[in-house]
Amino acid sequence: MAVDLSPTPDVAELVERTTAFVRDVVIPLEERHGGVARTEDVRTELQRAAKDAGVFAPHVSHEYGGHGLDMRGRAAVFEAAGYSLFGPLALNIAAPDEGNMHLLEAIATDQQKERYLRPLATGEVRSCFAMTEPAPGAGSDPNALTTVAEREEGGWRINGHKWFITGADGAAYAICMARTSGTDAGKAGATMFLVDADNPGMRLVRHIDTLDESLYGGHLEVLFEDCRVPDDAVLGEVDEGFRYAQVRLGPARMTHCMRWLGIARRSQDIAVARAADREAFGSRLGELGMVQQMIADNEIDIAASRGLITQACWELDQGRSAAQSTAVAKTFCAEAIWRVVDRSLQICGSLGVSGDVLLSRFLREVRPFRIYDGPSETHRWSIARRVLRRHDTEVRR
Amino acid sequence: MAVDLSPTPDVAELVERTTAFVRDVVIPLEERHGGVARTEDVRTELQRAAKDAGVFAPHVSHEYGGHGLDMRGRAAVFEAAGYSLFGPLALNIAAPDEGNMHLLEAIATDQQKERYLRPLATGEVRSCFAMTEPAPGAGSDPNALTTVAEREEGGWRINGHKWFITGADGAAYAICMARTSGTDAGKAGATMFLVDADNPGMRLVRHIDTLDESLYGGHLEVLFEDCRVPDDAVLGEVDEGFRYAQVRLGPARMTHCMRWLGIARRSQDIAVARAADREAFGSRLGELGMVQQMIADNEIDIAASRGLITQACWELDQGRSAAQSTAVAKTFCAEAIWRVVDRSLQICGSLGVSGDVLLSRFLREVRPFRIYDGPSETHRWSIARRVLRRHDTEVRR
Amino acid sequence: MAVDLSPTPDVAELVERTTAFVRDVVIPLEERHGGVARTEDVRTELQRAAKDAGVFAPHVSHEYGGHGLDMRGRAAVFEAAGYSLFGPLALNIAAPDEGNMHLLEAIATDQQKERYLRPLATGEVRSCFAMTEPAPGAGSDPNALTTVAEREEGGWRINGHKWFITGADGAAYAICMARTSGTDAGKAGATMFLVDADNPGMRLVRHIDTLDESLYGGHLEVLFEDCRVPDDAVLGEVDEGFRYAQVRLGPARMTHCMRWLGIARRSQDIAVARAADREAFGSRLGELGMVQQMIADNEIDIAASRGLITQACWELDQGRSAAQSTAVAKTFCAEAIWRVVDRSLQICGSLGVSGDVLLSRFLREVRPFRIYDGPSETHRWSIARRVLRRHDTEVRR
Amino acid sequence: MAVDLSPTPDVAELVERTTAFVRDVVIPLEERHGGVARTEDVRTELQRAAKDAGVFAPHVSHEYGGHGLDMRGRAAVFEAAGYSLFGPLALNIAAPDEGNMHLLEAIATDQQKERYLRPLATGEVRSCFAMTEPAPGAGSDPNALTTVAEREEGGWRINGHKWFITGADGAAYAICMARTSGTDAGKAGATMFLVDADNPGMRLVRHIDTLDESLYGGHLEVLFEDCRVPDDAVLGEVDEGFRYAQVRLGPARMTHCMRWLGIARRSQDIAVARAADREAFGSRLGELGMVQQMIADNEIDIAASRGLITQACWELDQGRSAAQSTAVAKTFCAEAIWRVVDRSLQICGSLGVSGDVLLSRFLREVRPFRIYDGPSETHRWSIARRVLRRHDTEVRR
Repeated sequence: MAVDLSPTPDVAELVERTTAFVRDVVIPLEERHGGVARTEDVRTELQRAAKDAGVFAPHVSHEYGGHGLDMRGRAAVFEAAGYSLFGPLALNIAAPDEGNMHLLEAIATDQQKERYLRPLATGEVRSCFAMTEPAPGAGSDPNALTTVAEREEGGWRINGHKWFITGADGAAYAICMARTSGTDAGKAGATMFLVDADNPGMRLVRHIDTLDESLYGGHLEVLFEDCRVPDDAVLGEVDEGFRYAQVRLGPARMTHCMRWLGIARRSQDIAVARAADREAFGSRLGELGMVQQMIADNEIDIAASRGLITQACWELDQGRSAAQSTAVAKTFCAEAIWRVVDRSLQICGSLGVSGDVLLSRFLREVRPFRIYDGPSETHRWSIARRVLRRHDTEVRR
Repeated sequence: MAVDLSPTPDVAELVERTTAFVRDVVIPLEERHGGVARTEDVRTELQRAAKDAGVFAPHVSHEYGGHGLDMRGRAAVFEAAGYSLFGPLALNIAAPDEGNMHLLEAIATDQQKERYLRPLATGEVRSCFAMTEPAPGAGSDPNALTTVAEREEGGWRINGHKWFITGADGAAYAICMARTSGTDAGKAGATMFLVDADNPGMRLVRHIDTLDESLYGGHLEVLFEDCRVPDDAVLGEVDEGFRYAQVRLGPARMTHCMRWLGIARRSQDIAVARAADREAFGSRLGELGMVQQMIADNEIDIAASRGLITQACWELDQGRSAAQSTAVAKTFCAEAIWRVVDRSLQICGSLGVSGDVLLSRFLREVRPFRIYDGPSETHRWSIARRVLRRHDTEVRR
Repeated sequence: MAVDLSPTPDVAELVERTTAFVRDVVIPLEERHGGVARTEDVRTELQRAAKDAGVFAPHVSHEYGGHGLDMRGRAAVFEAAGYSLFGPLALNIAAPDEGNMHLLEAIATDQQKERYLRPLATGEVRSCFAMTEPAPGAGSDPNALTTVAEREEGGWRINGHKWFITGADGAAYAICMARTSGTDAGKAGATMFLVDADNPGMRLVRHIDTLDESLYGGHLEVLFEDCRVPDDAVLGEVDEGFRYAQVRLGPARMTHCMRWLGIARRSQDIAVARAADREAFGSRLGELGMVQQMIADNEIDIAASRGLITQACWELDQGRSAAQSTAVAKTFCAEAIWRVVDRSLQICGSLGVSGDVLLSRFLREVRPFRIYDGPSETHRWSIARRVLRRHDTEVRR
Repeated sequence: MAVDLSPTPDVAELVERTTAFVRDVVIPLEERHGGVARTEDVRTELQRAAKDAGVFAPHVSHEYGGHGLDMRGRAAVFEAAGYSLFGPLALNIAAPDEGNMHLLEAIATDQQKERYLRPLATGEVRSCFAMTEPAPGAGSDPNALTTVAEREEGGWRINGHKWFITGADGAAYAICMARTSGTDAGKAGATMFLVDADNPGMRLVRHIDTLDESLYGGHLEVLFEDCRVPDDAVLGEVDEGFRYAQVRLGPARMTHCMRWLGIARRSQDIAVARAADREAFGSRLGELGMVQQMIADNEIDIAASRGLITQACWELDQGRSAAQSTAVAKTFCAEAIWRVVDRSLQICGSLGVSGDVLLSRFLREVRPFRIYDGPSETHRWSIARRVLRRHDTEVRR
């Protein structure tokens, strides 16, 4: 028991295998498709290859066919997978499925696990998480939730308007968050429901055209209109939805960071290769001070991101809430990764804005991460509030 | 004669008319097309409307049907036009045509003006400027020019490989830069040629897929293969091409800044409207300190950009080279405008990354400006070199 | 009438003379004293030399012995004077005297002008401006003013606690701001009083030890204890103090920027000289890209600062309130100048933190400017509020 | 064996004791002296108290009276000690003594350890490290070393000019770096010598007046003039000086970071206390968004700094060179800590620039850390070079 940063041998080995798999199998496919998988064929091909390579579903427990990695193990493996935009899809660790598996393992009943988790864990089906609403509903402020579920004979009736529901097109089911009690902004009173996609009360309105395009299944606007679900569609306990959301969101924030950190490393590698090969003004690009500065700052941002992810994951694995450390890590990583991609593109110049390398694709994919899962401003507000509360507590003592 | 920042009445009036035209006519079209004009119909409709509104070709001399604005006048009018991505196309002041008109007015013969400038000034045809080459050719370092023109009986034969030739698809002619003497990296020895698009020696290889998409006619890869042109295709004097490039580039840098400053203002207006209307955490978004900070920083960046453009344009209008002030303005504006769009998008949250507002489109369009017309790093290098040379001169005195 | 950035010949000539005076007379004295004038001898010597050089009191009207410069003229001359920490003291344009002269010219009665302005304008006496109070009094929020003046037979009785009263030690009089009506935080109800330093009710408590040390006469804590003043000590109208404060503060913000911009230029010149002469890693320091980047960024920050000052001064000279443009300029300049000094020091390395050059002195002097005259945060808040108000007005229209 | 961030119980307990000691004993003394210890009385009092508290010399091996902490243990304890400017002096872990003890333990002979290390470890004497030279000598580029040691009968004769020799005034001896072979810039050829302070050939020229003032014994300019030392004054092997310098510098960089991270935390605590207590514009300062942003950014910078220190220390404890990770950590920490102190001062406003809190003192102490132990630019250069070299190696494979 002392500070130690080595991964376990199992994790180290899985990282190595994942790295090779991404390099040899995933990236060629990704580059052929410009970083955006648009068909089931691609998904199927990727996932079959991942199973063959023994790297599929690393985060799922052994019982459901995975490797049972804790958060620290995921940190290493997800980063390796995230080195390609197609890596997470291949390993079945892309958002939102990965977070939903985590949530279902934590709170679903055994029957629900069999019906919803098992096929999700194998990649047989996909899922979505229906929480976010357009203004003035639940966005960065979850308390503004306006979707409502009312009890009725033998079940519930859900009405509400959701958007930015990632992966909804083609998902077999949604986990839908709806208010079940309380009328004010208080956190009490939300419940999570499992809604099958063929439920006539759930309607996909449109694909939202977004800057990012790589999340499989898109971002959709979804309507719940008198959507009837039975009692056993309740996930966990009634009125505990906000608490469960935290169970999902803390780790989900981190897994986003891990995956995007992979893209940051990839961007840096592309830029470094360019800086090593390209001549300008009579010397190798990489010998120019301003280029070196960008390369060094990338290296620093990547290392600092990894350090913060490690801290948060370690806390999560100890069963701590890690609210502060996940907020700190998410805020820093979202901005640092963005900077890394931006600098890498800048190093590559015109080539960087062309489709001949994937950097401008990465830039588009990474930008929304400063908004998704809570805008940086919301996280900074919550971080500061916790610091001030800590101060107040210490003073009162 | 004393510091004065008021525009002349003529310019003030033209700005007002342009502002109204953009608001009433241009923006509705732009929003319908998502900011990207893909067909001649759109261009024709826009330019006809601009002529009707009396705002067409403000930078061209009266002789060729324009308003004859100097650089200071352009600064005000182009910013007003740039408030929409479609504004410059409508007024016929988009890149690269606007810079080509400027160049042709300055150095073309009368016959060349009749044949090339007049139809360009009326919008009858479009043009392109073929200077940039893929690595290791002329990119941020123009001295690396590899395209060569060799003298032959009655004319010249051009061979070379260009890319990022904006507007080449559909252009009636290209102004092509080729080395005509000297074999080293020295600046001496380039010449500009007028090459008609139907010349069999000029071949459009492909549209380069780029992060930005709004420049009409795209960015193309172009090959000159034994491209024969007659003697009167020479623009200006033989071997003076690098000097002419500066004639074009100094002002062109500034007109880019002016147009994109319009987009910065537009972005800020979209964000402010959102901040004024949207409620979050119990108050108007615009009452939250971190949002106020972004709004204020936008305001500061816009004002500082305008100040630097004014300085450079005033120097250019005085006939000074303005190499330092245009480099300073270009570097600052490219980064400041980018920050403004980025912050505005951030203020709008998920809406900002969606296609429901044009901010993510603007982000894509504005990013390459930190690379096009010289990456910020190249400009910083040239700025510092001039400062050091100034120091050396003063010390020697 | 068109955009013009040339100074008038008078101003140009005065700038030239000031530049030579600072270089030849002021800087040698400044360096000998490490940038901090601590005795009347130094002040007297400097001001006598400035009078001899014909550059004294450029901002004061001819009637009181000055050059009668408007704000645009001051911008150029004050920057030249500010090139040395001792320049403003020499020209009698240092804070707070310069702002007080401006205020007295604008609102004092003829008798008050003879008694208070004339000896101040000649440098015979110094003055101070007693507004700021320790928390929870008037700091960045002037409405929190707690000093009170109560009417009594033949005059007023002032009670209050002030701090950061610059120049109070040795000042012949103070202009004291006190609440004269209203009990809430409303702006109505403050009055300015002229209080002679020998008034027994005004007591200098202590010199506040501050990071900056170059403002002559220090920053003091001052108590007004039953301080009796006659009716004719009222400056301007009763209850109009907050409005007058704006008369003083808008221009005073700009003159601070002008003076500190001089120090930014000086810092850059010191760093450039070092970069030109010093060898490291086998080349001139100034040939290293990261050093070039700092030099270029300095150049950009200086140019942008100057542009914003010009804009604000032009508005002020037109009689406009210029509240937004002065806030924008002050916020940007305070941070840009700070960056310039910080980078310059960095370029000089260990030498930069030593007393062998004045950069670390400049760093100490310039840092508080991000707080004095309103912290950047307060200005950003006011800038954003004006933007939002403008939006609300336009929408309502 | 898996990622673990808990300290050992011994370290945890020592951190707790150090924290209490700093809070109860050290800070009162520090505040009384304004953060600068100028006399032996203060040093003696502090060190006696640290011995009484059982927290003295935590980094020294048990054999020499210390706690024998590895780098990871030091990270935790030094940060706790660094919470006060006087903490490191009290625990005898201040620069340069701390680094010298580390070096002597690693490479001195037993006799040298008895004579030089033992009295240093107990605080009986102090020492200095004479490497840095004024331009054009060894500064950020150690290869430029100009001090020379020539072999002579029974020993060596040293000649050279050093500056920024921290702690030289009052030191019992210096470890002096001199060139002993090779004439070019090659790294081969330097040797370390133990020079007693009473050696007539070693002369303290002057105290350099610096922005920072808290390092006990000052920064001095030192001349070695025909300074004769015997053969057993050689520390380690002849011509191995540059390699030993790395033995010292890697860990020394980290211990600087640890100590200054303590000051960053202290600054944040001062600012948070202020933000919690102070009212402005009708609310608690800490409820204003821009203040929350600064508090949150401080929290992020502190956490990221700690993560990078942990990474580097773990590598060092594994016996790895850690050249990249210490460079990354040093560069980030120096800038992040600076930002934290700067923001904390900004939050406190006028109070922050006054001597009434120690923030402006901290600002002065922390600024040079971006230059000392290698300017950030030098580290960025070395970081980028290693990245490029890694790329070249991988490509060749």
